[in-house]
Amino acid sequence: MPAVYYSKAERRLHVGPSPAPVAPGRGEVQIAVAFGGICGTDMGIVHGKMDWRLSPEHILGHETSGTVAALGPGITGLDVGDPVTVMPLHATADDPVRRAGLEHIAESLQFLGIDAPGGFQDRWTVPASTVFKLPAGLPLNVAALIEPLAVACHDVRLGEVRPGHEVVVIGGGPIGALIALVARNAGARVLVSEINPHRLATFHNLGLEAVNPTEIDLQALVKERTDGTMADVVFEVTGHPSGIAIATALPRARGLIVVVGIHPADRPPPVDLFRIFWRELRLRGARVYEREDYDRAIALAAEGSLGLERLITRVVPIARAPEAFAAMEDGGTVMKVLLEMESGK
Amino acid sequence: MPAVYYSKAERRLHVGPSPAPVAPGRGEVQIAVAFGGICGTDMGIVHGKMDWRLSPEHILGHETSGTVAALGPGITGLDVGDPVTVMPLHATADDPVRRAGLEHIAESLQFLGIDAPGGFQDRWTVPASTVFKLPAGLPLNVAALIEPLAVACHDVRLGEVRPGHEVVVIGGGPIGALIALVARNAGARVLVSEINPHRLATFHNLGLEAVNPTEIDLQALVKERTDGTMADVVFEVTGHPSGIAIATALPRARGLIVVVGIHPADRPPPVDLFRIFWRELRLRGARVYEREDYDRAIALAAEGSLGLERLITRVVPIARAPEAFAAMEDGGTVMKVLLEMESGK
Repeated sequence: MPAVYYSKAERRLHVGPSPAPVAPGRGEVQIAVAFGGICGTDMGIVHGKMDWRLSPEHILGHETSGTVAALGPGITGLDVGDPVTVMPLHATADDPVRRAGLEHIAESLQFLGIDAPGGFQDRWTVPASTVFKLPAGLPLNVAALIEPLAVACHDVRLGEVRPGHEVVVIGGGPIGALIALVARNAGARVLVSEINPHRLATFHNLGLEAVNPTEIDLQALVKERTDGTMADVVFEVTGHPSGIAIATALPRARGLIVVVGIHPADRPPPVDLFRIFWRELRLRGARVYEREDYDRAIALAAEGSLGLERLITRVVPIARAPEAFAAMEDGGTVMKVLLEMESGK
Repeated sequence: MPAVYYSKAERRLHVGPSPAPVAPGRGEVQIAVAFGGICGTDMGIVHGKMDWRLSPEHILGHETSGTVAALGPGITGLDVGDPVTVMPLHATADDPVRRAGLEHIAESLQFLGIDAPGGFQDRWTVPASTVFKLPAGLPLNVAALIEPLAVACHDVRLGEVRPGHEVVVIGGGPIGALIALVARNAGARVLVSEINPHRLATFHNLGLEAVNPTEIDLQALVKERTDGTMADVVFEVTGHPSGIAIATALPRARGLIVVVGIHPADRPPPVDLFRIFWRELRLRGARVYEREDYDRAIALAAEGSLGLERLITRVVPIARAPEAFAAMEDGGTVMKVLLEMESGK
């Protein structure tokens, strides 16, 4: 059975045989992986941007769905064959941030698929605390989107989005798309800002308003849409200085900017703190998800009204993983690409 | 009776005769001003930084105390002779931000002392909505500090400071000092970061911990004080890039940064959005005050426990106003300088 590796020494992606399966230990669950989504973070790994966190031959993947293949001693509440997904976060019990109730941003946080082997393999053994059982009837290809959907649920929750809110999403990749869908589901009126024409078309297919900020005056548009009040919540999902520049221009007085995009630590972007002061804007960072966000994402995916399947551009057999990564590299014409494993369905 | 003018044509401060008093109109109150505090904003006016907002011969002053000299028709709840202070904000009734409950940052906001004549004069006529009656026994020199104290009450309220919180104030001018005092009064443990030795000594006299960030490692100190958790709330009161740089390094996971300092709109400073994302920090702007902050500031000043009088470095007769402004210019050796008017006590 194949697995998808990134070789640090060779700085390249390759498909190789999965490690020989070992029976799960105490507190562990072994998953027969069905589908795995390729994330921008995986692309970063392949481009050598995270070598310091990886083992020499690193198995990629953290957006997964599958079924329980085997249970370690002491596991209750799960049975072999149960459909599941994985929340790929794990922190040590003595972590001060975890003890303060914020395990998802704990200092000792291990991200499965980066700091530990990932799920692009036939049998993936993970701590039982990371496993979420899926409701019957939720297709496993859609379930592979639960991890990024949980990111969006977290962002929208921290963004305090309420019915009737005017929301702007700056950057319409997969996370921006999911934020837009979750915010609309929460009752908000959503506008997406995105420059890629393929992605703009995807938004239109999803019935979402999306505009190209290089072609229109986004601030003037938001002003017009809101009769001068401006946006309640703005999500910055680009990680680019132009994204935060426009994000600070759009909120209403005391409106909220949620920073989802990953800006470079060594090149902090300019931020208009004068405007933040003058209009008493609020800004907050939002990173990954908490357990309640996974619960919410699973419920939303099972409910089926978001149209998640329309975000899946392609499904590629794991043996042809390099082709799938190349399609992601192309960027312009894909939203979400899934790998299909050889077992687990 | 003298008044303190800034002449736009000559770009200079001068003392001249007050305008001839006119009886207050409907909805207006005429105040016999007793004391006026000189603010950093007044220094900015004198340095020609706000000419576009000023009349040709502009009367300065927005931190004031006094007594009611005359009431316009229709004013109730005030009597001639009542001790008062002024909240120098006024917005039009049809302002959309005011209608949304945020009059203090309304788009039509007029700031008395900038956009309209100020209180460094014998008789100051203001809208009745701006006048707050003072409790008996509150000395009028201390009452002249209520306006900046209300700024601090607003900042601490928006900073959600709670008993036991670890608070750091970056920048120990008058506003930073008042934030420190109000936060301590709210039950927080407060550390002030300030480079000026005179101001550091003032903090020590007030029993506040204050350190020079060019002499110690502030991040290491906060880490040590909090057993690794870091600060709950950080107030950025410098308006300088170094202030926001250290402010983002100090909060705990999901901690809050309150931006009080005025950063230049045309030179937005770099802000570490990676760290804001990584630790899910929150940041918000806080500008001037709302009515409840004035009520709180008056109550705190009347209670007398903050030691406000120790922030008054000098009291100068209004006729010698240029001397008082020169002392402020010196900066290093003064905290708050008051002008004493020739009547009103």
